[in-house]
Amino acid sequence: MSTEPVLIAGTWRDSEKTGFFQSADPATGELLPALYPISSWADCEAALVSAEAAFEEMRGMPGEKIAAFLESFATKIEARAEELVAMAHLETALPKSPRLADAELPRTTGQLRQAAAAARSGAWRQPVIDAANNLRSCFGPIGPVCVFGPNNFPFAFGSASGGDFAAAIAAGNPVIAKANSSHPGTTKRFAEAALEAIVETGMPAGTLQLIYRTSHSIGEQLVTDDRVGATGYTGSRSAGLNLKRAADAAGKPIYLELSSVNPVVFLPGAIAEKGEALAAEFTGSCLMGTGQFCTNPGMIVLLASEVTEAFIADLTRRFSEAPVGTLLSESVLKSLHESHRILTGGGAEVLCGTGPGKGSGCCVANTLLRVSGSAFLRDAETMQTEAFGNSSLIVVASTLEETAAVLGKLEGNLTGAIYSATDGSDEAAYDRLEPILRQKVGRLLNDKMPTGVAVSPAMNHGGPYPATGHPGFTAVGIPAAILRFAMLQSYDNVRSHRLPEILRDDYTGPAQRFIDGKWQ
Amino acid sequence: MSTEPVLIAGTWRDSEKTGFFQSADPATGELLPALYPISSWADCEAALVSAEAAFEEMRGMPGEKIAAFLESFATKIEARAEELVAMAHLETALPKSPRLADAELPRTTGQLRQAAAAARSGAWRQPVIDAANNLRSCFGPIGPVCVFGPNNFPFAFGSASGGDFAAAIAAGNPVIAKANSSHPGTTKRFAEAALEAIVETGMPAGTLQLIYRTSHSIGEQLVTDDRVGATGYTGSRSAGLNLKRAADAAGKPIYLELSSVNPVVFLPGAIAEKGEALAAEFTGSCLMGTGQFCTNPGMIVLLASEVTEAFIADLTRRFSEAPVGTLLSESVLKSLHESHRILTGGGAEVLCGTGPGKGSGCCVANTLLRVSGSAFLRDAETMQTEAFGNSSLIVVASTLEETAAVLGKLEGNLTGAIYSATDGSDEAAYDRLEPILRQKVGRLLNDKMPTGVAVSPAMNHGGPYPATGHPGFTAVGIPAAILRFAMLQSYDNVRSHRLPEILRDDYTGPAQRFIDGKWQ
Repeated sequence: MSTEPVLIAGTWRDSEKTGFFQSADPATGELLPALYPISSWADCEAALVSAEAAFEEMRGMPGEKIAAFLESFATKIEARAEELVAMAHLETALPKSPRLADAELPRTTGQLRQAAAAARSGAWRQPVIDAANNLRSCFGPIGPVCVFGPNNFPFAFGSASGGDFAAAIAAGNPVIAKANSSHPGTTKRFAEAALEAIVETGMPAGTLQLIYRTSHSIGEQLVTDDRVGATGYTGSRSAGLNLKRAADAAGKPIYLELSSVNPVVFLPGAIAEKGEALAAEFTGSCLMGTGQFCTNPGMIVLLASEVTEAFIADLTRRFSEAPVGTLLSESVLKSLHESHRILTGGGAEVLCGTGPGKGSGCCVANTLLRVSGSAFLRDAETMQTEAFGNSSLIVVASTLEETAAVLGKLEGNLTGAIYSATDGSDEAAYDRLEPILRQKVGRLLNDKMPTGVAVSPAMNHGGPYPATGHPGFTAVGIPAAILRFAMLQSYDNVRSHRLPEILRDDYTGPAQRFIDGKWQ
Repeated sequence: MSTEPVLIAGTWRDSEKTGFFQSADPATGELLPALYPISSWADCEAALVSAEAAFEEMRGMPGEKIAAFLESFATKIEARAEELVAMAHLETALPKSPRLADAELPRTTGQLRQAAAAARSGAWRQPVIDAANNLRSCFGPIGPVCVFGPNNFPFAFGSASGGDFAAAIAAGNPVIAKANSSHPGTTKRFAEAALEAIVETGMPAGTLQLIYRTSHSIGEQLVTDDRVGATGYTGSRSAGLNLKRAADAAGKPIYLELSSVNPVVFLPGAIAEKGEALAAEFTGSCLMGTGQFCTNPGMIVLLASEVTEAFIADLTRRFSEAPVGTLLSESVLKSLHESHRILTGGGAEVLCGTGPGKGSGCCVANTLLRVSGSAFLRDAETMQTEAFGNSSLIVVASTLEETAAVLGKLEGNLTGAIYSATDGSDEAAYDRLEPILRQKVGRLLNDKMPTGVAVSPAMNHGGPYPATGHPGFTAVGIPAAILRFAMLQSYDNVRSHRLPEILRDDYTGPAQRFIDGKWQ
């Protein structure tokens, strides 16, 4: 049977495959007609050869040329917007509008243009000059980057279009993209647009490779290959940790964005002041996109009281009454049921949901679970099982100190939020809890839900393990996200004409440089 | 038998030990009288409890207070200089002057004072403000840091005095120091001085803990403990990789400085221009400190020619005639012999040395080995075995392309140097080789030996694996080295009075901030 081609060295070619797969329409459960290859090592080897050749050209390339490519790509995405939105909707059941067409697509092209601006200015390289020692340093590209995209953002985190792709290219690295198996058709269309931009702007043919799936062992072989500089992975914890184990053993940097339950603490004064509004806000945030965001609030922490009981009853009513969205795939559905089984098996009480949802296709009823603080503390690991989807776990602690203990047992998370009263009545509780939560999360919020992730230089879409693999890096936000795909390069007594332009004495570009102890 | 006490929570207390060890005078081989404990887990647990308590105070501490401690410590080191130099000389056989007293001691206090200045200014935190989104980020302390110091720099890389210690403290993290077993007495004296400074400047009692040795499994348990933020390790590759495996599996950042052969390429034109001067320069660099520097040039790459043969003969004569230094310990001696066995077993020819050296104590004759480019390529891994000490391997390639292939097979290194002619005759060869070498090393040098490592903001004392564990970080150079012990922390909609001072609108301190796209 004929399968879709892979993209290697600027050419769509037949895969040397070991099998094939199809994506499905999650709204109907029906398989879509296109067949996508499962690549053998031969495809990976060809992709590495191509990427290595491209890197030879890209590593010394002017930022202007890379920027022109990223901008051309953004324009071509806009030209194909209708086709991309239709395919992504078919493969993921995410709403066409506003979600795909009006939110995720502009976010994606915006990211590419921000990455272009960063490549053009070079400021991300952080040039430092020590004239007395004739010692200079800057960040430089790390080498070919493997990108494994997630199921939940087919555009903005897509392996051939998203934040990791943009960051890797901006630093001067070619990309080997592994499509997410739930939306291969969408990823293929992005790669087609990228290839047009590659040709148009005269980039190396191997700037982007696209494969669709490999066995686990071949995936591990890929990320550990000598020719690979680094890997970006967004997805499930188990698959990500297998890649991490392999990459770590080979000493290859790997940046992971894994699971996160994103705890939200509602302090008593906040609930007393405006419990209903908070319940509405939480319900909206948790059920938006059927809860399939990395920063979905999957855990609520409350202090026991009568007011808290009323708040929980209100939340339960809202969850029960809210419409039920469609999940991204059969595998997300299965995984959500499994998480509910683990949480209830560990002692969580079902307030609502866990059963079949009255929506179309892959659905689970909006779910709220409940557990006491003491029960949470008895098995904190089980109770932090991520239930990816329209589901959240309420932890009711009996005292402030028990709340502190619950936060102290949290694994690393992308975000953590604390809602507190405006009249100062929660201040002591905040001061007790904030330092604990601060060390557990990448982004700390006040009085705000975590689901919006602004593409901003001040964003940290990262956090301590196991939310990510390293708490010093962010996956969203330019220029910081670029540094994941860079290495620090020092030049000691190197003759002036051999230096990167940004380190030369006669540099006249826009990047600020740290020269002899002062920013200039 | 009574053993030296460990330092925990501001008190020198008896170790809960599983055994003891002694250091030896490498100049005589005689054991020194003091007995040092091998700590059980109980000591580590106590150290963690103490460090965790100290971290609660330190993480929000004004940089000024941390700076005062680091400066007080530097002053107390100077006051004890004679005692520290005498003890380090006894334990390591490193010369008192100029090495210990006039080079390493001022380097150490200079580092502490640079770290103090960084803590005071806060610029290392890289504050970013996005006013429109009310989103702010900066780096913050990561948590208690374990520091494992190396044998070769008892002051400047010492676990209770060196670069990792200074960087961890400057970021606001307490330290659990594990002394190097070859100079426990030196490390203990540093910890005594640090404790005086802790008391004098009102720092938390648990700012510094000191233990001397543990079993491997307890060391691994320590670096993976939930309460640990990160680990800094400088030392042997095998021990470091065991710690890395454990830390990686637990998702704990670990910064390693492991082995490096620091290749030096002498291009033909450079040898033709001033071969004798280069031979003298190389000999001096390679034999200085008996070759026991992380950046010691352990590999020379040459292109075959008659001039090259004369250059090799000159180098061999110089190595044979130069005085032989004393190695740091019996274990360094054994390891050097073992490396020579592996290299010659792999086909390297002995030009001079490998046998007993005519010096005092632990000695090996100054050693030069030789291998052809093709033989190197047949087993590049074996041929990159680090021979830590007064030894270097000459690789003679038959063509420029074979030279390129040799560099292409290099593992990650801290440094790589290329010497080229001043008349431009080596330019084409340089252009062919530099891009290959650039990606393999942290610091690229021209016409200069790698052994000097300036404490400069433009330094990169780091490089790709296995020289270190991550090519984006440096162990030397402030402020960059501090970032190893920091996490990125974003504040989203957080009320102004709850922000770290450096992110507030009314901040008036010295750190430059990136506000709404501009440095201010």
